[in-house]
Amino acid sequence: MAAWVASTGPEHVIAGLVDELDRDFRRWESFDKSPRVASHTPFGVIELMPTSDHETYGFKYVNGHPSNPARGYQTVTAFGVLADVHNGYPTFLAEMTILTALRTAATSALAARALARPDSQVMAMIGAGSQAEFQALAFRTALGIDRLRVFDVDPDAVAKFARNLLPLGFTIEVTGSVAEALDGADIVTTCTADKARATVLADELVRPGMHLNAIGGDCPGKTELDAAILDRSAVFVEYTPQTRIEGEIQQRGDDFAVTELWEVLTERAPGRAGDEQVTVFDSVGFAIEDFSALRYVRDRVVGTQYAQQIDLVADPDDPKDLFGLVGAFSPVG
Amino acid sequence: MAAWVASTGPEHVIAGLVDELDRDFRRWESFDKSPRVASHTPFGVIELMPTSDHETYGFKYVNGHPSNPARGYQTVTAFGVLADVHNGYPTFLAEMTILTALRTAATSALAARALARPDSQVMAMIGAGSQAEFQALAFRTALGIDRLRVFDVDPDAVAKFARNLLPLGFTIEVTGSVAEALDGADIVTTCTADKARATVLADELVRPGMHLNAIGGDCPGKTELDAAILDRSAVFVEYTPQTRIEGEIQQRGDDFAVTELWEVLTERAPGRAGDEQVTVFDSVGFAIEDFSALRYVRDRVVGTQYAQQIDLVADPDDPKDLFGLVGAFSPVG
Repeated sequence: MAAWVASTGPEHVIAGLVDELDRDFRRWESFDKSPRVASHTPFGVIELMPTSDHETYGFKYVNGHPSNPARGYQTVTAFGVLADVHNGYPTFLAEMTILTALRTAATSALAARALARPDSQVMAMIGAGSQAEFQALAFRTALGIDRLRVFDVDPDAVAKFARNLLPLGFTIEVTGSVAEALDGADIVTTCTADKARATVLADELVRPGMHLNAIGGDCPGKTELDAAILDRSAVFVEYTPQTRIEGEIQQRGDDFAVTELWEVLTERAPGRAGDEQVTVFDSVGFAIEDFSALRYVRDRVVGTQYAQQIDLVADPDDPKDLFGLVGAFSPVG
Repeated sequence: MAAWVASTGPEHVIAGLVDELDRDFRRWESFDKSPRVASHTPFGVIELMPTSDHETYGFKYVNGHPSNPARGYQTVTAFGVLADVHNGYPTFLAEMTILTALRTAATSALAARALARPDSQVMAMIGAGSQAEFQALAFRTALGIDRLRVFDVDPDAVAKFARNLLPLGFTIEVTGSVAEALDGADIVTTCTADKARATVLADELVRPGMHLNAIGGDCPGKTELDAAILDRSAVFVEYTPQTRIEGEIQQRGDDFAVTELWEVLTERAPGRAGDEQVTVFDSVGFAIEDFSALRYVRDRVVGTQYAQQIDLVADPDDPKDLFGLVGAFSPVG
């Protein structure tokens, strides 16, 4: 997967994913949808995220362990599977750690293209961790934004961010605080990993007309925004039942008004109401995004050097004689 | 997997699984439990079955497509994954079609060893499909039963069953009806694949003291027993919330009394109440069984010719620099 993304170019993959996601969000109603199935532990979470469009079934396995990097592991790893709904056979298995980062960024950019002010030029980035460069590339690809104001409590993360993106032609301003990063920004991406009720963005820093791309609040007990921001903004989500459990809006009741992104893309619901409104994309990541991404990759790698055949289905000569696969060698009892 | 089971011997694997399941059922309370997540279509179902004992996480992917054999495919295929709860990394991936058959049979035998009359000698088998031989082997392994009375509407299935088991030393009586098969049986295994409310066993055929091992009723709308049988039997299940949705007891209300098998094995609840009681094991298959089976196989194949290393986790030099894996090759933007 890493080799395929590197050879294709991550910006090219993101551009393709934005289009693929756009198509799948527009046919949102044709998918089976359910909140992901999470197994929480003191150290982190392991989740399964299934969906189906009645032709293809897909699911992703993904973990989130904030203390992993300190021990030399990735915070998030993932893999995904596609299957043929008609016979139930798995057809494609792929590592998805990088693909998850790419599809998350592509979804953010798709939302911002629909919701941010069209004249947006500068993005503040709060958090310069694993997801940050992918977000930056996606916003340049989909909205043409190449001016970034970055802040992270960890100077090493900022250095890594600059090292990766400066060669790609971004203008990057390293700032000393969240307030400084937001100064003059049209779009704010929050992308932090602490599994806590944090207030990464205080209400008073958010100015009229901003679009907030809130990525990090994505599981129960993990939020990034001052709840007062939600009260004065138009809030957009992927799949409401899951976001109420996992997103920024877990800070508000079940009657808190939100709009699903697919409704905006299909013009069933309004998006931004004028240049002064604050819009929030309360992103948690939904199974359909992984489905779109997996299918996108499958369609490009199957039959190339990047895909290999693995043996994941028992294949007896007679489909009704499973025992024949193992019984021939049995000792006579 | 097929090669490993064949070389180890399916009866030997089943014996090991019965012990492993017995241990895990006895520590039932230490597992996270939830009903499986099912995606139903007109053709069948695809399910994810996760569980965790807070050290190891596991899940199984499994499909059930009754019309598959007519098209040259397996009714059921499956694969499973184990992961390390501490860092969330997947550690083991295995094909599980055969293993599912083995663990289902081992669970049935474990239940029957606890619930059937100790003097049971003859088993009726209704349904001679893919699962049938595994059930027969498991009951011989765990209860010493080698006399079988088999009935299936499909004579080819019966022929396959006899062809596979006669060389293994079973005494097999092929019968012309369900009633004839049950005549003189101590244990009855129903194991049919139709996704329908069927009455494979009529109430009047079930005699006092029988143990019914009901395997086939395992998803909503799919049952095998006359509901009147349930009303006059002691019914035992794996995990009540899932069995109420999927098992024979979906024919009765949520207040229908059942006992979980682990409670019998740990002597928290009584099992059979005398030689005249009819006992029913309303088996649907639960995630912990797959977990036990996967761990059993992992502990035996890792480091042998039957296991191979696959690359399922992105592994950047710096765990915080995921982008570094793909960015180095990017064109300057």
